[in-house]
Amino acid sequence: MLRVGMLTSGGDCQALNAAMRGVAKSLFNQCSEVEIYGFTDGYKGLIYGEYRLLKNDDFSGILNIGGTILGSSRMPFKYIGVPLEDGSDKIERMIDTYKKLNLDCLVVLGGNGSHKTANLLREKGLNVLTLPKTIDNDLAETEISFGFQSAVDIATNAIDCIHTTAASHSRVFIVELMGHKTGWLTLHAGIAGGADIILIPEIPYSIEAISQAIAKRTASGKRFTIIAAAEGAISKEEAAMSKKELKLLRKQENYASTAYRIGAAIEEKTGQEVRVTVPGHVQRGGQPVAYDRVLATRLGVRAAELILNHEYGYMVGVKDNKIVKISLCDVAGKTKMVDPGNELITQARQLGICLGE
Amino acid sequence: MLRVGMLTSGGDCQALNAAMRGVAKSLFNQCSEVEIYGFTDGYKGLIYGEYRLLKNDDFSGILNIGGTILGSSRMPFKYIGVPLEDGSDKIERMIDTYKKLNLDCLVVLGGNGSHKTANLLREKGLNVLTLPKTIDNDLAETEISFGFQSAVDIATNAIDCIHTTAASHSRVFIVELMGHKTGWLTLHAGIAGGADIILIPEIPYSIEAISQAIAKRTASGKRFTIIAAAEGAISKEEAAMSKKELKLLRKQENYASTAYRIGAAIEEKTGQEVRVTVPGHVQRGGQPVAYDRVLATRLGVRAAELILNHEYGYMVGVKDNKIVKISLCDVAGKTKMVDPGNELITQARQLGICLGE
Amino acid sequence: MLRVGMLTSGGDCQALNAAMRGVAKSLFNQCSEVEIYGFTDGYKGLIYGEYRLLKNDDFSGILNIGGTILGSSRMPFKYIGVPLEDGSDKIERMIDTYKKLNLDCLVVLGGNGSHKTANLLREKGLNVLTLPKTIDNDLAETEISFGFQSAVDIATNAIDCIHTTAASHSRVFIVELMGHKTGWLTLHAGIAGGADIILIPEIPYSIEAISQAIAKRTASGKRFTIIAAAEGAISKEEAAMSKKELKLLRKQENYASTAYRIGAAIEEKTGQEVRVTVPGHVQRGGQPVAYDRVLATRLGVRAAELILNHEYGYMVGVKDNKIVKISLCDVAGKTKMVDPGNELITQARQLGICLGE
Amino acid sequence: MLRVGMLTSGGDCQALNAAMRGVAKSLFNQCSEVEIYGFTDGYKGLIYGEYRLLKNDDFSGILNIGGTILGSSRMPFKYIGVPLEDGSDKIERMIDTYKKLNLDCLVVLGGNGSHKTANLLREKGLNVLTLPKTIDNDLAETEISFGFQSAVDIATNAIDCIHTTAASHSRVFIVELMGHKTGWLTLHAGIAGGADIILIPEIPYSIEAISQAIAKRTASGKRFTIIAAAEGAISKEEAAMSKKELKLLRKQENYASTAYRIGAAIEEKTGQEVRVTVPGHVQRGGQPVAYDRVLATRLGVRAAELILNHEYGYMVGVKDNKIVKISLCDVAGKTKMVDPGNELITQARQLGICLGE
Repeated sequence: MLRVGMLTSGGDCQALNAAMRGVAKSLFNQCSEVEIYGFTDGYKGLIYGEYRLLKNDDFSGILNIGGTILGSSRMPFKYIGVPLEDGSDKIERMIDTYKKLNLDCLVVLGGNGSHKTANLLREKGLNVLTLPKTIDNDLAETEISFGFQSAVDIATNAIDCIHTTAASHSRVFIVELMGHKTGWLTLHAGIAGGADIILIPEIPYSIEAISQAIAKRTASGKRFTIIAAAEGAISKEEAAMSKKELKLLRKQENYASTAYRIGAAIEEKTGQEVRVTVPGHVQRGGQPVAYDRVLATRLGVRAAELILNHEYGYMVGVKDNKIVKISLCDVAGKTKMVDPGNELITQARQLGICLGE
Repeated sequence: MLRVGMLTSGGDCQALNAAMRGVAKSLFNQCSEVEIYGFTDGYKGLIYGEYRLLKNDDFSGILNIGGTILGSSRMPFKYIGVPLEDGSDKIERMIDTYKKLNLDCLVVLGGNGSHKTANLLREKGLNVLTLPKTIDNDLAETEISFGFQSAVDIATNAIDCIHTTAASHSRVFIVELMGHKTGWLTLHAGIAGGADIILIPEIPYSIEAISQAIAKRTASGKRFTIIAAAEGAISKEEAAMSKKELKLLRKQENYASTAYRIGAAIEEKTGQEVRVTVPGHVQRGGQPVAYDRVLATRLGVRAAELILNHEYGYMVGVKDNKIVKISLCDVAGKTKMVDPGNELITQARQLGICLGE
Repeated sequence: MLRVGMLTSGGDCQALNAAMRGVAKSLFNQCSEVEIYGFTDGYKGLIYGEYRLLKNDDFSGILNIGGTILGSSRMPFKYIGVPLEDGSDKIERMIDTYKKLNLDCLVVLGGNGSHKTANLLREKGLNVLTLPKTIDNDLAETEISFGFQSAVDIATNAIDCIHTTAASHSRVFIVELMGHKTGWLTLHAGIAGGADIILIPEIPYSIEAISQAIAKRTASGKRFTIIAAAEGAISKEEAAMSKKELKLLRKQENYASTAYRIGAAIEEKTGQEVRVTVPGHVQRGGQPVAYDRVLATRLGVRAAELILNHEYGYMVGVKDNKIVKISLCDVAGKTKMVDPGNELITQARQLGICLGE
Repeated sequence: MLRVGMLTSGGDCQALNAAMRGVAKSLFNQCSEVEIYGFTDGYKGLIYGEYRLLKNDDFSGILNIGGTILGSSRMPFKYIGVPLEDGSDKIERMIDTYKKLNLDCLVVLGGNGSHKTANLLREKGLNVLTLPKTIDNDLAETEISFGFQSAVDIATNAIDCIHTTAASHSRVFIVELMGHKTGWLTLHAGIAGGADIILIPEIPYSIEAISQAIAKRTASGKRFTIIAAAEGAISKEEAAMSKKELKLLRKQENYASTAYRIGAAIEEKTGQEVRVTVPGHVQRGGQPVAYDRVLATRLGVRAAELILNHEYGYMVGVKDNKIVKISLCDVAGKTKMVDPGNELITQARQLGICLGE
């Protein structure tokens, strides 16, 4: 009897269910004796021993459903060290549950924070496999994670809609996109949506450069400018500040979010009216696009293969467009940023897109 | 020779092109000698005599394209009285252009403000027909206007996406929707998206009632609450203020928009974390849904019929689900609000949706 | 204690779940003691006493899910008279189940066939309410049924896609759409998608007229022609045949479906290459559009109101854009055809669309 | 002055405009003196010297528009050798046009047939660059071509809709997908849509195996089976035939298309009712997904870079997920088939998908 635990951790995204279905359908198909334990609400379920025994049918009809059938929750890495109310250690409690259930393996679907915890469990001797889940695409060592392409599609559609309506308004539009501390989502959606200006955290912007780009468009007869701004976008001045100074500044300014801050600066500088769109969590929801379903399924099927081969301690990811296994210790604790020397960045510049520089 | 002028005025929306195509294809098909003059950027083009002579082919392939091939601009009613730079009167200038081109009729596609101007032109003796264009659905005397159903679909999809992602976050989500001073868009999208709480301007809310609704959901085991809030939503206290007091209050508070204001009040009252989504102008853009294309086409075809019958001074609208002509003087200067005794409101209550009361 | 039975019957469509949710949420919200029995697979479940007791939570999260949580099945009217294997009468068996469960009311969501059966049950003394479910929009006495607008959207998108690709191919494209014996779906999608020729059962076509319309387009420089053809479209010659003759002809010809038959005739007549698209059951599936969700919800809420008022023997439908109750005996056994004198038909002609005449 | 010719050839697909925009915007941005000549309707325009001089603005607003602003046409390779009506040679005529316009380079966006012709032109000394355009994904030496992922999304949505509706019908559904002689599109959409059986040309099927898979599903309580069948799917018996025999057989059978043929065989073998869906050209149309827009843009920008570097004789493609140049002679005349030992095929088997074997 093969006994596999499974949990989804962190902010959810599209294709989580597709990935779990890939693991499960593949195991049920290739192995006559399998038990899959789905932990409720991420690591919480593992800590408190809350789970459901999942059957083959539980994974039917979920391929194109957003969210996660297991529930998720954020329990950031920094809190791992804090003991539970009863004084017990979280990691110890997780190991207890794992052992009580006599699991052969734990499959974790998560992003950056979740990988740190997964790696800790691996170091403690558990058999752990992970799948890269994030719309931010900021997991190290994998070219892509599932959720990303679906979020890019939603963000792109938002820019499309703004495009249709922008022409009649002679204004500057800012669409604020997710991506946490990285610019992947904004960069891809910005190019796919034909944004005129793209602002990402990795390339701090100057309002001066943005204003010049807007002025250049106006001069060439364009009636509007569309800016795709990552939630983590930051000005050159802000990037030069210490964390503490920046935190203080943000508190003083009291903007609802990044796009409002940038918008205010542009209005002040150019006198032009600015309109802000914040799709927010919409980017995490809805049905996964076909690309993500195939990707998530493939990653899941490969995870099942590793389980059947007793290979543990890996994240299943993508390198050179191939499904590969990557040592968990190479992933945990790292963030994949957009390299400003990246080819896509160079191409954006060649296209004439202003990057706020 | 029949000579028809056409313009699109105010904030744009979906199916403007479909409506113009309906008028034009219908005229070209039924009448051997037609000239259609498309004025650029709404009434501006009529004032300054900026137009294009449009051919049958100009209306091909635009049925499903958002925006307007003529361009639009806002020139609110209150500015109509202000003379142009050269001292000339705007209305006079429009009449001049109309007469110089020897037009038989002017077709105006617009919302509330545009209808006031259209009616002024009618009073001055021009042959005017209008088509009801607004995602707000706030035009008097017509059950529906084109653009509305497309905007409802976009807003509903946003709530759908939030639904998928909400379950894993144990939070309150507020989706701020358009609608100007009315709640039509929010009411329809809120019901279609399964929002738990719907806040519209016509029914001022109390934070107390909202908090109780949230608490009730939490008590019954629900992990999240989704609030659809109209951009014009207002609290009972605010609704009791004078315009001046309210304006002052808004300035002092300095919230980015309605949802942030409501969110802050809920966080303060309940201690729960609130997330805000502001789709903004996205709701005006993109392709029209099939419903809007058929509606806009039908309204356009009927306008052409009125032109061929020399019947002027009407808005073409919908009553009892039938295409009808409505005297412009019955439309101009009025706003269609959601009647709190409205059947849809009653049904929302029957469903258990909290309306903030 | 209020005890309500519910079943979905016939070919499924979008917004079935939304309608059931409307009934249920409304009852649970307004009435402290309710039991809802969901019969499995339509009337079959009622005959064989197969059902589930449904809780409030069973209706959560299904508003935007296609299909039906109860399952459905076709059991056409003509078979009602045929006794079951054990010799028992179907109607008697249904009444037995109804009485055994001590139901106060049975809510049936169905199309034409299902309404006949519902009316039979009413005549036998059961308390029956129905909701109009069909993408064909062919139910008598209601302006619209849920499912229709979602199907129109899917069909319209198909025509849109053909439009994009048609320009490069200099061909005739036929898109075959559903609608059973009526042309509602094809008429609406054809107008929304900008089809050049629309063929519906109510207006038999002549290949001669179609060929002329194609030739006229070619002469005016158009590179392609798009035909929206209802699955029930029929030629003038065929319409003049007896049922028996037609059946024989269809058998001899052996075309895969209507569009192939029409396509072959056009190719023979004009020598032009024809391409066929048959979206088929795709039109019944997927998520309901916002319009259908609101409509289905409203119909469901009204049904709940009728139940609470002990008013039975009605279909809840739409007249003059208002939610109304309609006596079941006025609906059962009738089909709502497109009246060739219908305003939409007149408008299609005014637009220059060829109707095959 | 840089003078660049551009043409789109063969069946059209999504993101053609995005790719051309990538080339053009990039050239206009980096080079002060550029002239771009857009040939009408593919190679035809090059032969007959029909073209438009395109400005920067001609490439604005087309990023998300399907089809091609240049028009396309099929002129299969085999006809290249046939002289024109006036006896002149097609290739010579193309060279004439190229030289008369004094072009520095010709950019061809096309599929397999178009690459053969492009390579012929290269052999004759013209400076040629190509971009891989096909929803079939069958171009050699590139991992992916634009159009493919958009077509996969449309095909997947069709399967999704069938899924929603299938449950109530206890039937076998066959969705026939494009892909020409290869199975890429069907394989990806089949996995993304959760098809139970996937039939592709590279793995000839046996009706016996398909029937067993259906029986197995029925035995395990599943109410329906969904088959994704490539238009080029072929049975083992047929695959063993000579081309001539097969042609004769197809003529005798006279099925409307592949799915009808397979459907008839399944009905005969199993007695089960089969429903067929043929989305057809819908798969080539509509707006490109974000993935394709980014891909097409990147390929176009790289082509511009090669032009500026005077590097010719290449197709710009993707290897190991990187944008690369590939010698035209390595691409022309080859077809990229799905290798039955392909990892995705193995994974489909691991998932329990029947491949008709």
